[in-house]
Amino acid sequence: MTDPSLASFLDVDADHPFPIQNLPYGVFTPPETTVPRAGVAIGDHVLDLAVLNDDGLFDAPELRNTRPFAQPTLNDFMALDASAWAAVRERLQTLLRTDTPELRDDAALRERVLHPRADVTLQLPVDIGDYTDFYSSKQHATNVGTMFRGAENALKDNWVHLPVGYHGRASSVILSGRDVRRPCGQTRPNDDEPPVFGPTQLLDFELETGFFVGDGNELGTPITIDEADDHIFGMVLVNDWSARDIQGWEYDPLGPFLGKSFATTISPWVVPMAALEPFRTEGPTRDPEPLNYLRAEGDAAYDVTLEVDLQTPSMSSPHTVCRSNTKHLYWTMRQQLAHHTTNGCNARPGDLMASGTISGPTEASYGSMLELSWRGEKPVPLPGDETRSFLEDGDRVILRGYAEGNGYRIGFGTAEGKILPAACT
Amino acid sequence: MTDPSLASFLDVDADHPFPIQNLPYGVFTPPETTVPRAGVAIGDHVLDLAVLNDDGLFDAPELRNTRPFAQPTLNDFMALDASAWAAVRERLQTLLRTDTPELRDDAALRERVLHPRADVTLQLPVDIGDYTDFYSSKQHATNVGTMFRGAENALKDNWVHLPVGYHGRASSVILSGRDVRRPCGQTRPNDDEPPVFGPTQLLDFELETGFFVGDGNELGTPITIDEADDHIFGMVLVNDWSARDIQGWEYDPLGPFLGKSFATTISPWVVPMAALEPFRTEGPTRDPEPLNYLRAEGDAAYDVTLEVDLQTPSMSSPHTVCRSNTKHLYWTMRQQLAHHTTNGCNARPGDLMASGTISGPTEASYGSMLELSWRGEKPVPLPGDETRSFLEDGDRVILRGYAEGNGYRIGFGTAEGKILPAACT
Repeated sequence: MTDPSLASFLDVDADHPFPIQNLPYGVFTPPETTVPRAGVAIGDHVLDLAVLNDDGLFDAPELRNTRPFAQPTLNDFMALDASAWAAVRERLQTLLRTDTPELRDDAALRERVLHPRADVTLQLPVDIGDYTDFYSSKQHATNVGTMFRGAENALKDNWVHLPVGYHGRASSVILSGRDVRRPCGQTRPNDDEPPVFGPTQLLDFELETGFFVGDGNELGTPITIDEADDHIFGMVLVNDWSARDIQGWEYDPLGPFLGKSFATTISPWVVPMAALEPFRTEGPTRDPEPLNYLRAEGDAAYDVTLEVDLQTPSMSSPHTVCRSNTKHLYWTMRQQLAHHTTNGCNARPGDLMASGTISGPTEASYGSMLELSWRGEKPVPLPGDETRSFLEDGDRVILRGYAEGNGYRIGFGTAEGKILPAACT
Repeated sequence: MTDPSLASFLDVDADHPFPIQNLPYGVFTPPETTVPRAGVAIGDHVLDLAVLNDDGLFDAPELRNTRPFAQPTLNDFMALDASAWAAVRERLQTLLRTDTPELRDDAALRERVLHPRADVTLQLPVDIGDYTDFYSSKQHATNVGTMFRGAENALKDNWVHLPVGYHGRASSVILSGRDVRRPCGQTRPNDDEPPVFGPTQLLDFELETGFFVGDGNELGTPITIDEADDHIFGMVLVNDWSARDIQGWEYDPLGPFLGKSFATTISPWVVPMAALEPFRTEGPTRDPEPLNYLRAEGDAAYDVTLEVDLQTPSMSSPHTVCRSNTKHLYWTMRQQLAHHTTNGCNARPGDLMASGTISGPTEASYGSMLELSWRGEKPVPLPGDETRSFLEDGDRVILRGYAEGNGYRIGFGTAEGKILPAACT
């Protein structure tokens, strides 16, 4: 599925995020139309799956009848099963190979289905029914717990027994590139004084990844951990923007709410799990062993390098402030999905389930300003004389991710956003 | 809008939930078709708005073009503004009045647009993008806090300053009448032993109401408290089924998750706010005064009587175990909506925002088994020799609500569900 010797007739550099081994799915609008449709990224091009399908270039007649790519979201395609995703992926790799003449030698077809990336408009690829955010990095949970409750009470008792998570806000999940307005809200900076209303003073990013559910489950029928992989369609980068002061005042006892719900940025290209198959790895040791419903055989962590770049208004280029990796996650995606549905809760195609902040074991791998600056006690040095404890207006945050293959990369592209000044009313 | 002297040419008893003063909206499928559409309940009939509109019986040409009633959900109609809702309501009341011959005297039209309730199939009336659950009854928050933290620490510091809430699970909101399977999950019944997996032992209902957002707001642009009423379309009954043992083990620090997400039952008829306008009342005194963004003039509580009936398998009829009232809510719907969007979070047409359990000041008005049985210390007596601390398999729970007018009632109908035995895998 991700044969390193695969090559496309389209030139793609070895360090490009979107080689033929990747083929992430997105939704785009080509020039000279307003009708969005599904595509895959290949190098600096986008391949139009709707036109390919209408032209009969996929073998499956059911695709031609249901037209899952001629939709403004990927949900219909995600709702098909894992074998349908595999068949489409195999066909696309065949069509794009160096030695397949079908598309390579048909200039008129290429003209109709291959668009330079710069010519198309990307949009949010999925209609997200429900967005769940987990809390699955032990280092992150320990860091936050240490700051707020001391090292001896850092992890709550439940943390090592189940993947703690909460429901997030689906409406405010936005596409990479959209600016983020600094939120206003109620905070209580001083315990001895009444709460106040105003712009957050502690604006932060959170470095996360997320997966989209493919075919879902009926209410009342859990997805077991052995079935879970077949229900996971693919992954994106997630920046779970956070207002720490709003969150800190509101969250007890029902959890994060307005401190998060003002914006969550995702990357535009959904990397299929098939492209990440060669990058499975063992993941951290789990102690104690989880209950049976959370146990399964085989590696289920993924080795994906993650980076966060920050660019302040006075900087001419972004500066990397964090390097982490999805393999640091204690709880895997299949454990998250099995846990989430074990009470019968129904997952639907296009549901987004994010990892929680992915902090690694070293200070340079912490996935939020809260941790990098240790609540502002150690401001993060930037090029020039600048430092940052939390985000300021005009700051741009860029998440990147990639798995390093043998002569190719499976890239996630970026999830970017710039902070606009608050406009409190 | 709710003139008590209004009367319909259709016979409706004075204690019927759906007189001409109510006209709640729902979605139904008439006999001999599979195409769902919007309707209003009038007495024991359902009036087909899609056919009325296609026949040109609404004056507004924009309704005829967009056909908001010929949809499987109310979302398109909700997305119109408050003046459009008012115009439709006024037209419907005119059409149904005793002294309007248009529908009264047209037997062929009546045949096409008026269906006996028993002949149609109701369905979930709204595509719920996001479901939020607040925690706005002070008595409920105090009861729960007292049980788990003691009377002196019952209310958290933030509770009197802002309407505490959390994101719920939209996918598992179900229509009244659908059975609810007892969920399985991880709990820790004994602090000295490892957690276990199995059926919840502490299954509960929560007596709530909820409102649907009408037209929403753009991301980044809050709805102010003075604007909020115009964005609230109508209300339903909500049973936020809860597994207390799953919730108790999982919720710290990110809030309720699988203890709630297995099912949330709503009543099928959305009562428009216009029908409830005569039942505005002052609500409880707020001390301290909330911050400016949560202050507004005029009454914003509603006097709606609520009841919970319980019927065990051995009982021949339901028995009322709780009588409460929405006027006991400390935080109003307009405060909830203003708070929810104050950080710029976008609400969308059809978003559901529920009140949290509505417990009144007396023991008989507590809105959950947890409170009624005081965590099982005082089992609730039922007819015969039965008692209940929490729900058992086969138990049926029925929520009812109505506002008592002068010679008429604005009823909510019921939100019902029966507990099926667990099927843990």
